[in-house]
Amino acid sequence: MIIVKLGGSVISDKNVEKSFHEDVVSQIASEIAQFYPKEDFVIVHGGGSYGHPLAKEYNLREGIEPNPDSKRIGFSKTHQVMLELNEKIIDLFLEKNLPAFSVSTSSVFITEGGSVAYGDVKVIKRLVELKFIPVLFGDVAIDLEKGIDVLSGDQIITYLTKMLKPRKVVFLMDVDGIYDGKPGEGSLIWELKVREIDSLIERLSGAAGTDVTGGIVNKLREAKEIAQFSEVWFVNGKIAGRLSGAIMGDGFGTRIKG
Amino acid sequence: MIIVKLGGSVISDKNVEKSFHEDVVSQIASEIAQFYPKEDFVIVHGGGSYGHPLAKEYNLREGIEPNPDSKRIGFSKTHQVMLELNEKIIDLFLEKNLPAFSVSTSSVFITEGGSVAYGDVKVIKRLVELKFIPVLFGDVAIDLEKGIDVLSGDQIITYLTKMLKPRKVVFLMDVDGIYDGKPGEGSLIWELKVREIDSLIERLSGAAGTDVTGGIVNKLREAKEIAQFSEVWFVNGKIAGRLSGAIMGDGFGTRIKG
Repeated sequence: MIIVKLGGSVISDKNVEKSFHEDVVSQIASEIAQFYPKEDFVIVHGGGSYGHPLAKEYNLREGIEPNPDSKRIGFSKTHQVMLELNEKIIDLFLEKNLPAFSVSTSSVFITEGGSVAYGDVKVIKRLVELKFIPVLFGDVAIDLEKGIDVLSGDQIITYLTKMLKPRKVVFLMDVDGIYDGKPGEGSLIWELKVREIDSLIERLSGAAGTDVTGGIVNKLREAKEIAQFSEVWFVNGKIAGRLSGAIMGDGFGTRIKG
Repeated sequence: MIIVKLGGSVISDKNVEKSFHEDVVSQIASEIAQFYPKEDFVIVHGGGSYGHPLAKEYNLREGIEPNPDSKRIGFSKTHQVMLELNEKIIDLFLEKNLPAFSVSTSSVFITEGGSVAYGDVKVIKRLVELKFIPVLFGDVAIDLEKGIDVLSGDQIITYLTKMLKPRKVVFLMDVDGIYDGKPGEGSLIWELKVREIDSLIERLSGAAGTDVTGGIVNKLREAKEIAQFSEVWFVNGKIAGRLSGAIMGDGFGTRIKG
């Protein structure tokens, strides 16, 4: 099994409300179609310019208090707009005869402290056994402490990796991989060992951009956890062939090994 | 807590593809708004002319075999069309400031023999505690025997009633309640005791119309189970005031008591 993360900035332009890169997602689906059904896939996508603006407007990360009436409405609206984005991805996959199936993150996972505290993966497991391609997404979530929170696609992947033990996790980004410095400025890191991640995080802290669910530093923190269970790749999702390369193991990008 | 079932034939014209009775659902939302937040609600709606035609076209009730490739596509498409219907309902509730929140049935429940075999209701419970109004729907589902199946709104309600112990379950239909004979022909039953249901089912068998998830006879079978845990009402969802009557306890329709 391979888990593929479609980064929000790959499928969408974060600065243009409800923008969707149909050509990019279509290309990604084509590459997956080259390996399915021999290989099993689980897809997780980010919020891009769909979920983030609403989550921010309603300040969902703060929890249900204060203004619970407004928070509840914002919580529901954010989920609906994520379903709207999710549907576009499902449709493109179905067009290529890939049986992508939407799984609503918020119906399954409960968070605590920004991570998944609990989530039953029985349905997702059975879907994969039946040769479906479950498609999850960054979403709102019930939270044990704050009542509500936002759950990032990256956090979902960390949890799924522990539960499903994929042989590979591929993060599709809008840059070529992890850089030793600012993306495009520092040099691309081809191979990273788990024990090197902490010092890299220290060097990068403050240099990366931010979004509601955290930027590259958070991604590296997740990668460190994930790499205990699976090989991890960071590749450019906007360039044809990069995902295939990561799947085949001779890809252009950053590979993290345990 | 009150569980309200919006029957497929109440919210939609089953004979007109993708028809949606916006005025009816808006009226239902207004009536619920009179009792929320003092009263907790869980909503379950049927497929109407959204889910049923696709489920039939792809013969989903038969399971994943034969033609698993086609079945998988149909399974995903049926879920997407149910999300489309669900969104219309969520939107109308949000317009009335009711914090309806979409819960994807297929992400949570696994079926066996047409009933829910398994389904974790933690998220639904927490949503209600936080004063959300979870909105579930008849949907496709992973099945333990057949791989896939269709799960009716009525079956979901039976399961939720056992797990959540609501004080009342109200089924909104397009007729005035349960009739002793064909709807509109036989006489309306005002009160039905659980022990009388079996003989009524015998008399009605064959008289009612059918849909993919069963008609009135199936509904009565569910009602018999549900009535062990909760008061049950069958009222006309297309007529203003009937839902309110059932909620207040002096309604026009059929009441089933344990």
